[in-house]
This record gives sequence, C-alpha cells and structure tokens, in this order.
Amino acid sequence: MAKGLPKRSEDYAKWYTELVLRAQLADYAPVKGCMVIRPYGYALWERMQGTLDRMFKETGHVNAYFPLFIPESFMRKEAEHVTGFAPQCAVVTHGGGAELEEPLYIRPTSETVIWAMYARWIQSWRDLPILINQWANVVRWEMRTRLFLRTTEFLWQEGHTAHSSEEEAVAEAERMLEVYRVFAEEYMAIPVHLGVKSESEKFAGAVRTYCIEAMMQDGRALQAGTSHYLGQNFARAFDVRFQDRDGRLEYVYATSWGVSTRLVGALVMAHSDDDGLVLPPRLAPIHAVIVPIVKSPDEAAAVGDAVSKIKAQIQGDVRLHVDDRENVSVGWKFNDWELRGVPVRIEIGPRELRQNHVVFVRRDSREKKTVSLDCAGAALVAELESIQKSLYDQALARREKHTHRLDDYSELKKQMDADIPGFVMAHWCGNAECEARLQEETKATIRCIPLRKESAEEAGRCIICGGPSPRRVLMAKAY
Amino acid sequence: MAKGLPKRSEDYAKWYTELVLRAQLADYAPVKGCMVIRPYGYALWERMQGTLDRMFKETGHVNAYFPLFIPESFMRKEAEHVTGFAPQCAVVTHGGGAELEEPLYIRPTSETVIWAMYARWIQSWRDLPILINQWANVVRWEMRTRLFLRTTEFLWQEGHTAHSSEEEAVAEAERMLEVYRVFAEEYMAIPVHLGVKSESEKFAGAVRTYCIEAMMQDGRALQAGTSHYLGQNFARAFDVRFQDRDGRLEYVYATSWGVSTRLVGALVMAHSDDDGLVLPPRLAPIHAVIVPIVKSPDEAAAVGDAVSKIKAQIQGDVRLHVDDRENVSVGWKFNDWELRGVPVRIEIGPRELRQNHVVFVRRDSREKKTVSLDCAGAALVAELESIQKSLYDQALARREKHTHRLDDYSELKKQMDADIPGFVMAHWCGNAECEARLQEETKATIRCIPLRKESAEEAGRCIICGGPSPRRVLMAKAY
Repeated sequence: MAKGLPKRSEDYAKWYTELVLRAQLADYAPVKGCMVIRPYGYALWERMQGTLDRMFKETGHVNAYFPLFIPESFMRKEAEHVTGFAPQCAVVTHGGGAELEEPLYIRPTSETVIWAMYARWIQSWRDLPILINQWANVVRWEMRTRLFLRTTEFLWQEGHTAHSSEEEAVAEAERMLEVYRVFAEEYMAIPVHLGVKSESEKFAGAVRTYCIEAMMQDGRALQAGTSHYLGQNFARAFDVRFQDRDGRLEYVYATSWGVSTRLVGALVMAHSDDDGLVLPPRLAPIHAVIVPIVKSPDEAAAVGDAVSKIKAQIQGDVRLHVDDRENVSVGWKFNDWELRGVPVRIEIGPRELRQNHVVFVRRDSREKKTVSLDCAGAALVAELESIQKSLYDQALARREKHTHRLDDYSELKKQMDADIPGFVMAHWCGNAECEARLQEETKATIRCIPLRKESAEEAGRCIICGGPSPRRVLMAKAY
Repeated sequence: MAKGLPKRSEDYAKWYTELVLRAQLADYAPVKGCMVIRPYGYALWERMQGTLDRMFKETGHVNAYFPLFIPESFMRKEAEHVTGFAPQCAVVTHGGGAELEEPLYIRPTSETVIWAMYARWIQSWRDLPILINQWANVVRWEMRTRLFLRTTEFLWQEGHTAHSSEEEAVAEAERMLEVYRVFAEEYMAIPVHLGVKSESEKFAGAVRTYCIEAMMQDGRALQAGTSHYLGQNFARAFDVRFQDRDGRLEYVYATSWGVSTRLVGALVMAHSDDDGLVLPPRLAPIHAVIVPIVKSPDEAAAVGDAVSKIKAQIQGDVRLHVDDRENVSVGWKFNDWELRGVPVRIEIGPRELRQNHVVFVRRDSREKKTVSLDCAGAALVAELESIQKSLYDQALARREKHTHRLDDYSELKKQMDADIPGFVMAHWCGNAECEARLQEETKATIRCIPLRKESAEEAGRCIICGGPSPRRVLMAKAY
C-alpha cells in the first residue's frame, strides 16, 4: 500500500511526483519527457474535458480536427511564431521508408495549419465568425519535464476563431478567459487572477495574451489557461481576407485559447495533502466510496441493502463506488481511498446498521459524522457541496495569506527566497529591462498585469527602477 | 449552393469524394494524404465516439492515454509486428533542434508501447484483467488515400486488454466484436458479417483477427472494425509475466480492438444518394430541421410559437434546428439540408398554421406528410425510429440482392467484373496459394471466414483449386 509519501513541507517537488505515481494518475513513458496518463488520471481529464466541452458549446463553439503534421514552410510564415516555436518542435524527416521532400513539424500548436485552411473557407463576412475548437495532442520538446505540468507531448484543447472586427475578436478572447475562470474557480475550486501577459511573456504571434494565474500550495504560480487576441497577424501570414458588407477586402481578426492536461497537475498541487490526493467533488471520478465493515455473508447482504437504499435516495449524477475487495483489510482500503482523494468515505457495518445509520468521513477535513440511513442520500449531496465550497475557500485563504503588497525591492528579494514565496503585488514601470532584471535577481517573473481593477489600480513607483507605474502587477516564481 | 453531385451510377468514387467535400464533412489538408475533419463531419464522429465510449464503459473498460512516440527498438521487439508496420511509419529524427540518438516512430498502433507499460504494472493475477481503451490519432504512411476511408493520419480508438487465460482473452476479443456489430447495425444502420480473417490478412502480431465486414452501395466490402486475439505474442516480446493463483509465472494473454474515423466514410457510402447525405437518426448531428416559410415578422412569430410547441412536446434528446437564415431562399435551404442528410425536414408556414398542422418531409424516402401540430413531437420521434429501421432494412436488402453463392470460378471472375461486384459466398480450401491467385485474377480478397454458422457451414470444393473445403467464405472487392 502506497503510504509514506514525502511531506510537502520537506520536499514539495518530490511529494508531488510521488503522489502522481502512487495514486496512479500517470507513469513515465519509455520516451524521455513523455508520460502515460493512467485510467484514474484520465478519468479526471475526462471530467475536465466534458465540462469544458459543454461550456464551449454553450458559448457557440463547435469541434473539428486538424492534422498533426505541419509543413516546415507553414511554420515559417508568421515571423514571431516560428522564432517562438520552431526550436522546440519534433520533426518528421522520413515516412513510408523514404526521406521526405519537406520535413514535417509535429504541431506544437495549430495556428499555422488552421489558418491555411481558413484561407480556403473564408471569402465573405457571411462566412464569419468561425468558432472552432479542437481536442488534440501537441508536442513541444522540453528540457526539464514534470508529470502533467510540463511534458513533451500533452493533451489540450485549442480554440481558433475568426472574426470580422477587432472588437468582436477581443470580446471573444475575453469571453473565453472568463470561461476558464469559471472552470478554474467553480469546478477545480482554485481561485485565479485574470490578467494580461507582458510583451516578453505573450504568445509568439499574439497581439495580446490573456491568462489565468493560480497559486499552488508551495506559493508558486501556475499559468492555468491562456487566451490570445492574435489581431490580423495570422490572416496576413496566410492571406486570409474577407469581403465586408460594403464589398471591401479586409484581413480577418483572430483569437486562440487553450488549456491542457497541465490542469490535472494544478488540481493535485492546489488541494492535496501528505496522505494523498484531495479532489474537488465536481471533478472527482468517484464522489463517495462505501467501505463495508463486515465479517459474514449475512452482514455483507445487510450492507448491500443499505447501499441500495442510499442509491435510491439520490437523484442525478452521484458517483458511488462500493469497495468489496476481499483480499485487503479495511484499514488498507481507508488508506487507499485517502491516497486517491475520494471526497467522502462511507463506513457501513452491522453496528451502524443496528442503529439505522452510516458514518461519513470527509477526505478534506477528516471530519467524521453519523448520518441516519433514511436521509443519507441527501446528506451526501449536501456534504459534496460543502466540500467543493470549502476547498475553494481554503485555497482562497491560502492565496490571500501568501499575497504581499510590497514597495521595497530588497523585501521582494527576501520574499522570493522564503520557503513559500507567494504572490507579490508590486509596481512595475512596464520596461522589459526591469522585467529581465527581476527575473535574473529573484527568479520571479511578472505573471500578469491584473485585469480586475480593484486589486491593482493605483499609481506608484516601479519596485525595481523607481520609475512611474500606473498599477501594481502580479509577480511570482512560477511552474 | 452545392447541387450537381456526380451520380453514383456514373462515378461512385467521384460521387463519394465530392459529397464529403460539399457536405463539409472534411477537406484536404496541406500535407498529402492527411485530412481536416470539418465541424459537421466531426459532429458525426463525436456521436460515434460518445456511443462507443458508453458501450465500452458498460462492458467494464476504462480510458487512458499512451504516448504518440514509440522508440524504434520497441517496434522491433515483436517480429511480425515490425515487418507489418515499420514500412508505413512516419519517423521523427530531430527534436528540440538536435538529431535524436534513437529515431522515434509515430504510433501506427500502440501495442508495443502499451505492453512495455503493462510489463511494469502487472505482477500478479490480482492485477488482471486490465481493460483499457484509448482514443487517439495514429499515422500510417499510405500511398493511395481517400477522405475518411484511408488517410495518413486518422483518429480511432484502440482497446488493449491483458488477461490471465487464453479462454478469457478470446472471450474478450469476441465480446468486443459483438459490441462493434451492435454499433454498426443498430446505430450506423449497416448490416455486417462477423468473421475471422485468413492467415495472410490478419493483424501483424495477432494469433487471430476477427472483423466485421459491410457492403457499400457499389457492392464493395468495407472492413468496419477488427478485434484481435494476440495470444502471448506481445507478453513474450515485452516479458510480461504474472504469478498465477498457484504461484507459477506465466505470460499474459492479450487482445486489441479498434475502429476509426473510416466509419464516417462507411456511413456516407452505405446510405447516401445522388442529392447528398442520408444519415441514420441515431448518429445524425441534427434530427430535424425546421424551415419557416414566412414573408413577414408576424408570420415568423407565429412559426416561432409553433416551434416552441413542438419542442415542448418532446421528451429527451431530439436535436432540432431552426433555419432562420434570411439571405437565402427556401428552395436553397431545402437543397442544403438534403445535401447534409438531416433525416426530417419540417415545413411551417401561415397556410399550414391556419390548419393547425405542419409538413414533414423524410430525407430517405422523400415521403411528405401532414401532421397535426398538437402531436408533432410524438410524430417526429416515431418518424425518426421509422427512418432508422428503414435504412437498415434497405441496406440489408441491398446486401442480400448483391450476395451470390457461386461454385464456378469463371462465374466468380465474371461477377467481380460486374458494375456491382457484390459479395460472393464460395468455397475455399484454406490454402494461401489459392487466396493469392484469387486476388491476382479477380482483385477480390477473402474478406472473412464467417462466424455465423447458418450462412456458411456446408462442405464443398474450393472454387479455385477444387480441393476440399469445410465451409463457404466471404469474397469481395474491398475498400
């Protein structure tokens, strides 16, 4: 049984990796930097996919599928894009036993091949907007990899939309950022900052990159989703023009936006503890595990009746699992389900049944309570809602605790050396030189220029150079 | 408007390709042999995926994700497998700007990388069975490609299971073949023959390959799914042994099974006509399209009320679409939805509403009927069920009409030269020489040795050499 995880306080990185392996979320693949997503980890991803896919469709998007291979010449059409992505691409040089005339890049992202297709599909304003999303695998050759957080191949969704005006495209990029916020906060139970990336951190080929930034338990930031306003950059590179209502030809405006299997890593890092995963109910593959505590077939049958009773009380999608394994002890089962982060454990034995009740044990707080069998279904639904809310509240409280408004550069440096560096809200003049110096001297980066005014809008002096600054920005060490 | 498709009777191949392009199911990708699956085509695939995924889960399977890249050395571990697949692989030789030490094959199928992982995960009988499925893209370098039917990259699912006995593994392979049969017949409305491939046609690395074979409207066969009993071949190649209940070490037994986006092509070829797609309701992205026939805002509002009334009458998942486009004519809309194969068109205008009825037009039979607005919802549900059944019945009748029991080789040759070659049930002695001669002289192949006894079990003489034959087999020209 996989107990004895490293403690978070002692070695957070090792705790994370061991947890991912032992909870069987993922395993290392034979090829360096790649991973295998095991069934329990994939079930989490499926829940994320299902939720996001519904949200995308509710906002008018449809799915499609574009090819894995991108001709080298396509990659070169958008100048910033090729500089940003070509160095980290995997390249196919042989196919069907022969050397290829033109090498094929494995998509690191699909703007180029998608805009080559949009060039064929768009002639008039009647063809716009195009609101397409794709679920796919992409490859980026990474030097330092970590399960889920940074892998050479990963799964993601990438939305690629085409619009007839800048206004509409910007609104789309912001709408999808908001979808990501809702998903992060309401499903993953992780509060996020919404912001804009600095020029040096934006997507290669974008006019503006929006992002959501989350804090992990070790006080580091994790970029949990990005949404790009691409302007007319890709339309120009691939000559995609449309005839507007007045008959004039204009270049099409674009957005792209994506989240990836990295979110599974974020989920693990945000809530889990030294005993294993802690999963928010809305994404947990199993909501509650019932562990029968029985010694005879008669007792097992009585527990079976109680389980049927609970199931009959529940309307809708509550995912119950009965652990009736016979070759392991009850204590082993408790540890196993704690490791796997199932939100509620339900213990049922003859002693409980004599009193017509069952025992609930919450994974997050360890709180144990006795619940009447007659209303166990409703109590479970309420418990799951309470856990979902509590995980968010805790994550928010943790973030607030570890967020510092600083105005002194030496304090900032000291903060970034702390065990839990956290978020620093500080003034920045907007110059790339100060940004580079910050990173070099503190290992922190400017995560974003926050969009929410209340948290940041106040003029001041750049914490690095003392120059004028219109607002505070979010600085942190990041994954 | 995309009318004027080539006629099936004049050029079936061209009709198919034009239809796929004009109905916007797919488009050619910039890289030769690859395709883009457009939203309407992808919506069909999503319906297929959703249905199959549910059926897989109901039979105890879970999803996981294995890597795209397979080290060259892994491909070489199973002798038949490498001979079969290596020549059609795409090979990555460079990554991150440098030449790789070992080339990486892009998975043509995932047995090798999956069994390398199973070697780590399986120690004891307690770890078995493993019942994993994966939804993924694979690449096989094809010389002659055709949209959906044969593309260099395609989407598929591949199940890979591990068992402690031959009996259990064979049962699994046969169970999944039955799942495919149910899917083909009850959802795609395509009758299929279940059978076993000959030695020369089986999967590279399998002990036995099961398949389902369908007939397209031009009388050619299309292999619509395969399920392989792999014996201990991959377990031996990757040294995957388990301790059985008696403490002995034994190699694990395996199966694999898959269907692909090729099924979208099969769906198109099986039912569609010279005016466009004909989609079976169970897989159609849109069940019924409502075309308002109105001249004023008042009339449009009245139609809107009628639509709400119909929607309110329907329980469950009926996918209605209202075509309220203003810049195209009603006639154009009719043609457009015929091209897209929506099973029922509902016409509503002031004349109909005055009589409190609406008009249904079936896509398959063109039958037109007047339906009272008060029971239009129930009538629609019944109509959809009737269409689903009718498409299957027609496909079955077509197959029966074009299936020939022949005992004379010259007749077989003549039949294979006919406009609609169809299926031939004929005797075969089981020798590879006769099989090769058949293919060379008639272009037909042995599609399968049928599993259903009633259709084939009768001794006779090989139609090619006259040698003894235990049963008839299915011969056809194939896609």
